[in-house]
Amino acid sequence: YKIALLPGDGIGPEIVPQAVRVLKAVGQRFDREFQCETALIGGAAYDATGHPLPEETLRLCQASDAIILGAVGGPKWDNLEPHLRPERGALLPLRKQLGLYANLRPATVNFALADASPLKYDLVAGLDILIIRELTGGLYFGEKRREDLPGGGQKAVETLEYSTEEVERVVRLAFTMAQKRGKKLTSVDKANVLESSRLWREVVEELAKEYPDVELNHMLVDNCAMQLVRHPKQFDVMVTENMFGDILTDLASQLTGSIGMLPSASIGGQVALYEPIHGSAPDIAGKNIANPIATILSVAMMLRISFQLEEEAAAIERAVDSVLQQGYRTGDIMQPGKIRLGTVEMTDAI
Amino acid sequence: YKIALLPGDGIGPEIVPQAVRVLKAVGQRFDREFQCETALIGGAAYDATGHPLPEETLRLCQASDAIILGAVGGPKWDNLEPHLRPERGALLPLRKQLGLYANLRPATVNFALADASPLKYDLVAGLDILIIRELTGGLYFGEKRREDLPGGGQKAVETLEYSTEEVERVVRLAFTMAQKRGKKLTSVDKANVLESSRLWREVVEELAKEYPDVELNHMLVDNCAMQLVRHPKQFDVMVTENMFGDILTDLASQLTGSIGMLPSASIGGQVALYEPIHGSAPDIAGKNIANPIATILSVAMMLRISFQLEEEAAAIERAVDSVLQQGYRTGDIMQPGKIRLGTVEMTDAI
Ligand SMILES: CC(C)[C@H](C(=O)O)[C@@H](O)C(=O)O
Ligand SMILES: CC(C)[C@H](C(=O)O)[C@@H](O)C(=O)O
Repeated sequence: YKIALLPGDGIGPEIVPQAVRVLKAVGQRFDREFQCETALIGGAAYDATGHPLPEETLRLCQASDAIILGAVGGPKWDNLEPHLRPERGALLPLRKQLGLYANLRPATVNFALADASPLKYDLVAGLDILIIRELTGGLYFGEKRREDLPGGGQKAVETLEYSTEEVERVVRLAFTMAQKRGKKLTSVDKANVLESSRLWREVVEELAKEYPDVELNHMLVDNCAMQLVRHPKQFDVMVTENMFGDILTDLASQLTGSIGMLPSASIGGQVALYEPIHGSAPDIAGKNIANPIATILSVAMMLRISFQLEEEAAAIERAVDSVLQQGYRTGDIMQPGKIRLGTVEMTDAI
Repeated sequence: YKIALLPGDGIGPEIVPQAVRVLKAVGQRFDREFQCETALIGGAAYDATGHPLPEETLRLCQASDAIILGAVGGPKWDNLEPHLRPERGALLPLRKQLGLYANLRPATVNFALADASPLKYDLVAGLDILIIRELTGGLYFGEKRREDLPGGGQKAVETLEYSTEEVERVVRLAFTMAQKRGKKLTSVDKANVLESSRLWREVVEELAKEYPDVELNHMLVDNCAMQLVRHPKQFDVMVTENMFGDILTDLASQLTGSIGMLPSASIGGQVALYEPIHGSAPDIAGKNIANPIATILSVAMMLRISFQLEEEAAAIERAVDSVLQQGYRTGDIMQPGKIRLGTVEMTDAI
């Protein structure tokens, strides 16, 4: 298996190598060969080459079987032109060019860590939801322009567009995922206001006929934000468009209280991309205190989704569980009476 | 003072009359005269006249000094054509026609009720934030269309538009409100992706120069959803565009755990509109169990904002506090050991 490693910025270059150590351990134990090659992305790429997504990086990704990304961005690059910034100049084009139309974000709460949630224990202990966000359409990639107005001032205009096909492929994926999990799918839209949401809902209704074993319901995005806080365990799989998904996935991950634990996958094209959901955290970079678990669990997602190596994926997940049960913690998930480990030492334990 | 009453649907016709009783009591005690006239809106208006926002209702609103709305909508009208539905056919046109460009939504948590929040007690007890949502622009009112695609399927296209002036007036209001409160303003946008957000941010930066006493910060909407859950008390006044505001205001109100307590104001035009933030709750309509407090507190907002009757407004708020302190509760905020009251009896107590 050929894997492209894109460590990126901040803590990225610390956590990605740790995830690779876990991957190598899995390779040894299960007799698999993983070939990793590293490329630049984000601020690090900008500093070295003048662009946050060098051609070479894109080519390496396209020639690989999967991609592991650390994180991009940091205050150092915040004042560049938008198209040179790590987020706009690297992340979004990477998603688009690789056709990664579905972002899978599990929000799960280990019983041992449920205390860390801002929500009351019972509301989140054992939480296990999967949000699927459309990732290459909508406002993110619509036409954008600025106009000067005759009376002074300006006008910004941008377009939110979705086609039947764009909705269909991501919703179909969501139905399939729901079938493999709790057989419940919540489609989130704003059909009482948006035309794109009405198209979205029609497509969902049409596809639902092919998945009679999945219990479907529609929820308005404003209500959904409330329900996620009020009673998150009511959900199993959720699916929504790009901008709503951006907001709801971050909201859901914050509910868990341990963002340093959450992996993600972006799929849909030839090659899929796996990354922790947390950011580049420049403030703690280089101190060996970042939590490597989200990236390590992203490796598990990669093994399961891109390579169908279920046993190998489960081995990583069990190792993480067991280490937590033995009381090991990084600083971000530290609790009284537990044993604090650094980035490298946590990976040793896993 | 001439006041238009629009009870609407569901529990609307139960709670609005209770709010009027409180208003009359204030009138007697402070020697003010409030003339109330009632008109139809929403499903009730559709049933009676064939349209959810009759001309007559709009005219009454325009001829009044303030409007008190109950709530609109219900399953009975969910399958009408969009433009005849209570939300799309009445609420949105009413906002637009009356020029109500700013929606003010306080999210406050009375110490006595903080236990009801899904969040841990310390995170919310004493919470007092004010979210200001732009209410007549953005995706809500942009052009919308549907196209058939040559290869089959369709495309939905809609426009998100903001002008300098539209941003300026609501942001100016937010700065003014922040000056009167904790002098902190958080402007929420998605400037790393949207052109309209970049315009938004530029206008905010420009206006900030006129309000040097207000501490301003910008926050991305995805991060904001997280911060609201992680540490809501970090906020004082927040301001954001229409769609983000729709999601964030509902999220914030759910954090309080007592939506039946939260009022709102929509201002900007000749006449302002006041309403509880909760919906029409058709399932509990007609049972004398709805919580009238959100509507009663909306009356207090009206007295303060539209009529500058600060003392009168404060009297209502004190009455509500005192009744809660004496242990009276409606069903939705009931706690062990407290005294449960119906809609009318709660109003009697206040
Ligand atoms: C950095 C930003 C452009 C990006 C997004 O909005 O998609 C991020 O928030 C994410 O969710 O991956
Ligand atoms: C009913 C709906 C159109 C409305 C909105 O989205 O503005 C509601 O959610 C609100 O927040 O007042």
